[in-house]
Amino acid sequence: MPLYSDPTDGFVIEAERLRAWTDALVRRVGTPPDIAADVADLLLAADLRGIASHGTARLPQYVKLIEAGVVDPVGRPVKEVGKVSLARFNANNGWGHHSGRVATDDAIERARQTGTAISVLRNANHYGIAGWYAMRAAQQGLIGLSLTNTSPIVAPTRARISMLGSNPIAFAAPAGRFGMLVIDMATSTVPRGRIEVAARRGETLPVGWAIAPDGSPATTPELALEGALQPLGGSEETGGYKGYGLALLVEVLTGILGDAAFGPDIVGLFSTDGRSNLGQVFMAIDPSALDHVSSFERRLERLLDQLTHAPRIPDAPGPVLYPGQPEAERAEKQAREGIMIDREHHDSLVALGERQGVAFPAARAIE
Amino acid sequence: MPLYSDPTDGFVIEAERLRAWTDALVRRVGTPPDIAADVADLLLAADLRGIASHGTARLPQYVKLIEAGVVDPVGRPVKEVGKVSLARFNANNGWGHHSGRVATDDAIERARQTGTAISVLRNANHYGIAGWYAMRAAQQGLIGLSLTNTSPIVAPTRARISMLGSNPIAFAAPAGRFGMLVIDMATSTVPRGRIEVAARRGETLPVGWAIAPDGSPATTPELALEGALQPLGGSEETGGYKGYGLALLVEVLTGILGDAAFGPDIVGLFSTDGRSNLGQVFMAIDPSALDHVSSFERRLERLLDQLTHAPRIPDAPGPVLYPGQPEAERAEKQAREGIMIDREHHDSLVALGERQGVAFPAARAIE
Repeated sequence: MPLYSDPTDGFVIEAERLRAWTDALVRRVGTPPDIAADVADLLLAADLRGIASHGTARLPQYVKLIEAGVVDPVGRPVKEVGKVSLARFNANNGWGHHSGRVATDDAIERARQTGTAISVLRNANHYGIAGWYAMRAAQQGLIGLSLTNTSPIVAPTRARISMLGSNPIAFAAPAGRFGMLVIDMATSTVPRGRIEVAARRGETLPVGWAIAPDGSPATTPELALEGALQPLGGSEETGGYKGYGLALLVEVLTGILGDAAFGPDIVGLFSTDGRSNLGQVFMAIDPSALDHVSSFERRLERLLDQLTHAPRIPDAPGPVLYPGQPEAERAEKQAREGIMIDREHHDSLVALGERQGVAFPAARAIE
Repeated sequence: MPLYSDPTDGFVIEAERLRAWTDALVRRVGTPPDIAADVADLLLAADLRGIASHGTARLPQYVKLIEAGVVDPVGRPVKEVGKVSLARFNANNGWGHHSGRVATDDAIERARQTGTAISVLRNANHYGIAGWYAMRAAQQGLIGLSLTNTSPIVAPTRARISMLGSNPIAFAAPAGRFGMLVIDMATSTVPRGRIEVAARRGETLPVGWAIAPDGSPATTPELALEGALQPLGGSEETGGYKGYGLALLVEVLTGILGDAAFGPDIVGLFSTDGRSNLGQVFMAIDPSALDHVSSFERRLERLLDQLTHAPRIPDAPGPVLYPGQPEAERAEKQAREGIMIDREHHDSLVALGERQGVAFPAARAIE
């Protein structure tokens, strides 16, 4: 179920070279080395998994925010208040990738003591793929959860304008020979990036993706981009109020609980008009508090076996998948064969490298 | 956005009389008084909120399970293992309403110490409306979450047969002058009960609700009832794999984490073929670990104000709502004016009362 197909016009670059360049570029704009390493890890993970919208393609925008003084490249998260299983951090407007990594590690450490723990952040910034933080817990044998609010692009059920963000839910669990189960989903039907792709391809839109500015279903990408995304489920008749509820659940646990910005008050994530002040949540649950983690994994293996062997619908485009499977397969392939980036993405990084005096490494064209 | 409209043919009964009769009936089949009180509370809450499918209408089925020895009316939950913020209980196959209430209260108590806490149950039974447990936390100033797995009625994306339950997610938060925010949603597009209503009304079904036994979209309720429900989002194109992911998230945190039954192995909830052995999760998060709960509520009030004042789409059937609003309004009205139950529901309780020697109280016919 991958959202974005491989580019047919663009370049292939070896993952470690792209990581090293990203790291150098991020340091060049004033970021301390340990923070830059987190940023590079996150952006590479997105590129490897085929989520180009959340990887190195965002670097020009991040650099713009730093140059405008909107994001602080040396900002570090500080624990402000809390108890052993629920703590709030001030992310101090630093790189979201670093504050998210620190908050995740802290939640994991506390979960090992008490069974489960939550870190809530405020004054946070865009943090890349939500799934990375959940996966970090799962790699260590814990269940991970990560949520963030985002700037408003989704219209609540019955409303005509955007009031809530795409507010993603990410969840990961260790899954034995299946690797990891990874759910990483916006609570809108599709992300805005998917509408932009439809615009470039000249597609019409299915009902349930978005509404036009007048509140009617958006049949073209242009109307959708002027209007608002719909919550998961689409219209009221097909359960869209559930997606609205999920977006609100995320908002309550992030912006409201964290005393950050929320709902329609959030400044656009890549706007230089002001700080985002996002709220974010990172949670870890330690199955080994209940029984041996391998028992947990054996049970999950059995379930994923059952699911992936279910008989298929007639027009299925492929086998029954488990969440995270296509992204993991893509990451494995691209780690081996290089990361494919489209021409626009490539050229923007070359230009950024020239401007910052950190030459982008040579990449070979896709044949 | 209520799923079920008020019955036009049936009876009105005062809430406290229905509660007293339910309590007496449940005690009559061998349930200790404190457990019976929990069952009556839960079933009345569902009836008051207009969720007839989860209220006293289920009593004949519950009694059948007890008489068949499938559910143990004196079973009590016992804490088996865990740490301060994550504990597992064996529900010992008792009434789900009681084990759920005990597990919720235990999570609330531990959350007050550590900031957040989870109770996981195994050997549990059908527990009524998931929202009740989350609301119990919210009534005490905490954020509540409740999840349960259920017997398989939902087909994963691309699969033709039911492999997962409707696996609900319930979430509640204290919301100041808005009362409570309450999300209580199956992770399928609609519950099976909604298809049964469509069958009685002779309706056709929108695409995205269910598939027929051959895997094609079910256009009639009859085909849907023979086939499988679709996960929230419907088909793959409209984001159905997200609903599939959410159902799986619930399954991992309940059946897999709790070492209960899971997925296609779960026996039908109202079948006398065997024990359900459900997995359930109850979680509480204490906002007062971070700042005063009234600050949390002021922020949530502001957000709900913004949402409910958003301009509407042209064909909106009513104002923009916040989750839980229609159910709360209905509960308030029915607490005052009596609970409306349809004729079939009424007659089944009269018959049950006769059989058990606990006469059902006189109710007046709906005019």
